[in-house]
Amino acid sequence: MPDELGSQRRTHYSTDLSPAIAGQTVTVMGWVLAVRGHGAISFLTIRDKRGDIQVVAKSGACDDGVRQRIAALKPHSVVAMTGKVQPSEKAARGVEIVPDAIRVFSEVAKIAPFEPMAKTVKNIDTRLEIRAVDLRRGVLQDIVNARNMALRAIRDYFAESDFVEVHTPKLISSATEGGAALFSIFYYKSQAFLAQSPQLYKEQLTMGFEKVFEIAPIFRAESSRTPRHLSEAISIDLEEAFVDYNDIMDRVGRIVTVAADAIRKYDGLDGKLDVPEIPAEIPRYSYAEMMEKLESAGVPAKWGTDLYPSALQKAGMAGFYFVYDWPLGPKPFYVKPAVSGDKKTSESFDLMYGDLEISSGSTRIADRAELESRMKQKGLPAEKFDYHLRVFDYGMPPHAGCGIGLERLLMALTGTPDIKDTTFYPRDIDRLTP
Amino acid sequence: MPDELGSQRRTHYSTDLSPAIAGQTVTVMGWVLAVRGHGAISFLTIRDKRGDIQVVAKSGACDDGVRQRIAALKPHSVVAMTGKVQPSEKAARGVEIVPDAIRVFSEVAKIAPFEPMAKTVKNIDTRLEIRAVDLRRGVLQDIVNARNMALRAIRDYFAESDFVEVHTPKLISSATEGGAALFSIFYYKSQAFLAQSPQLYKEQLTMGFEKVFEIAPIFRAESSRTPRHLSEAISIDLEEAFVDYNDIMDRVGRIVTVAADAIRKYDGLDGKLDVPEIPAEIPRYSYAEMMEKLESAGVPAKWGTDLYPSALQKAGMAGFYFVYDWPLGPKPFYVKPAVSGDKKTSESFDLMYGDLEISSGSTRIADRAELESRMKQKGLPAEKFDYHLRVFDYGMPPHAGCGIGLERLLMALTGTPDIKDTTFYPRDIDRLTP
Repeated sequence: MPDELGSQRRTHYSTDLSPAIAGQTVTVMGWVLAVRGHGAISFLTIRDKRGDIQVVAKSGACDDGVRQRIAALKPHSVVAMTGKVQPSEKAARGVEIVPDAIRVFSEVAKIAPFEPMAKTVKNIDTRLEIRAVDLRRGVLQDIVNARNMALRAIRDYFAESDFVEVHTPKLISSATEGGAALFSIFYYKSQAFLAQSPQLYKEQLTMGFEKVFEIAPIFRAESSRTPRHLSEAISIDLEEAFVDYNDIMDRVGRIVTVAADAIRKYDGLDGKLDVPEIPAEIPRYSYAEMMEKLESAGVPAKWGTDLYPSALQKAGMAGFYFVYDWPLGPKPFYVKPAVSGDKKTSESFDLMYGDLEISSGSTRIADRAELESRMKQKGLPAEKFDYHLRVFDYGMPPHAGCGIGLERLLMALTGTPDIKDTTFYPRDIDRLTP
Repeated sequence: MPDELGSQRRTHYSTDLSPAIAGQTVTVMGWVLAVRGHGAISFLTIRDKRGDIQVVAKSGACDDGVRQRIAALKPHSVVAMTGKVQPSEKAARGVEIVPDAIRVFSEVAKIAPFEPMAKTVKNIDTRLEIRAVDLRRGVLQDIVNARNMALRAIRDYFAESDFVEVHTPKLISSATEGGAALFSIFYYKSQAFLAQSPQLYKEQLTMGFEKVFEIAPIFRAESSRTPRHLSEAISIDLEEAFVDYNDIMDRVGRIVTVAADAIRKYDGLDGKLDVPEIPAEIPRYSYAEMMEKLESAGVPAKWGTDLYPSALQKAGMAGFYFVYDWPLGPKPFYVKPAVSGDKKTSESFDLMYGDLEISSGSTRIADRAELESRMKQKGLPAEKFDYHLRVFDYGMPPHAGCGIGLERLLMALTGTPDIKDTTFYPRDIDRLTP
């Protein structure tokens, strides 16, 4: 039977240990990163939430039973170690622990299919099958910690900018972004869908709160198997009254900057993360300019087509940049057509990182008649959206907003090549567990 | 056609206006709360995100066209008003605006089925049908703003306490809390479910991160029609390694306190909210003690039964209190049986507010064999949980945690009688729209 925790608690984290407390008896807790034995001496590295702890069990210097128990430990075992702090020039924080007592909360018999210190593992499925173990690896610890700090910085930005946090329903009655890629649910006795975005709800909420944000899951039945698509992802959504898409591009620029700054400050277990520089003004190219860029690069560019990754690569697009004033045609019904000039373009933008789309936003249509006419053009039945359209009769402010894919933003900001590693338990067409 | 926003932007919020800027020309934006006309003079109240603005349009003092346009406005219309700030003893912030120009972004023709200033509306469905309009009422503005501040305070608490924010999948392959009340989904070519809680995932994540929290939707196919159940709710989940349920009760006490303190500071549009006092130590009663309380109050109490609201009411239970050491039998498989004493009780607790359950937590089983044995007792097929059980082979720390129902906590902290009003777009057996 494993040892019980009982009333014992940790007295120090790894980061609390230093030569300044040499001679003190401490209790540390964590999991075994590595054990090395050389006959009468064993070295144990324990990793806790904040870092690593060196334990040295030497014959004569500590109890033989404790030393033998340490020598027999397998990686990933979970332990509490009580012992004396002793200065050591070789150890990471200048100290090691000389053990007095050990308790093993979880004794590990199996050998994991990959090393806890491995930087890379060949087969991603091997990792995903025991994801919680995989997430102990330094490289993933660093991404999650960076993610945590970025989220905090982004929420701070929203609070300072007077945005209200909202939670919109994920169970909805009709498609917002057109009918494709929706998951269908049995909702009591009727049919429902999982929300692909909080779009219509966040727009409505500008009526009462002007500035709203939501950081929540979105669901897309994407059949593509790529390192940049998930069936369930976290979207950072914002929506704001009395502004247009230019103001939203400014906000997206700030959000990317505060997130990058937060991550840049973080000292990872595996060293500093490779955070790209964010220019004070992220370049903005109109869709028409992009067409010219592609043509100059010898890529056939036809007005109205999407900007495909392969084309953007050929044109040498790198770093963060906005593409604005997209053709109206393929845009969702709620995107506002350009007020001036031809009616072919829309007040819309994408934030790109190289060939990766990070965010998409626009000015929205605030007038019911205009919205219904766009729905008609797109072949959408207005009566299915009655629950949405009816609030436009009671004063909808002009508004604009965007969604930012958190996992994609983190790919860019942490240099992570596969989106599965900027989330915890990825979901895609092939994977519903763990 | 409505006026376009164009390049005009708000220069001042309502709260930026004061006699100190008398004489200045400002542009305010918002929606019309009320218009009153007395022949040659019209009074207009505009509400923006932060408060109300008084506009006085008097014949001779402002352009006749502007004055007539103001007089014709209906409540909820969305406007921009440019004019001069003028001291006024009668107006709320000691100032009113004398208008120079008005733009109407959204002209309202319909009369809403309830007054924007109404404190109560008889039929909740009337409100829910145009929820975004309903949410403009002061009482709901105050709840949402309080919600926002409480969430921020809670997240600050988690950050200060070194918890990592996680996002666990909502699309899952098997039931965590037993099979009832699950929504079923078509997931590509197979079946999936919507997560009723992040339970197993957050437990797993203590392996790598020790302290994790998630604030995210949970889904329960509750067939009950009550003012305290939702089919989609926000759960504040936390899970922590190397502690037990007593430590988690301490954390829950802190979370309730920081949330209450945040709301208490908030000056609502409709005045201060009625926030209950939180005792420095929230009382803790064992389940056995509760049985005695019920018996003293003349309520038949049989060991093993749930504590029903009607029984708690009869026993006069009020305010916040914990009930701990619940019978093991009905508890989910992951709840740890009491280590000492009889094996009938569990290391578990509920946080109650009067007769309302706010939070439920426990020490968890960290040993695979013990967990499998509990699953067997509960009639759950262990093979369906293989994706979960297998990580227990690689060092699961002792851990404990809880979930807190955000909407229920807000009912308690803001004195809101119906849970539908502590969320935005409530979902229940009868309602999937708006």
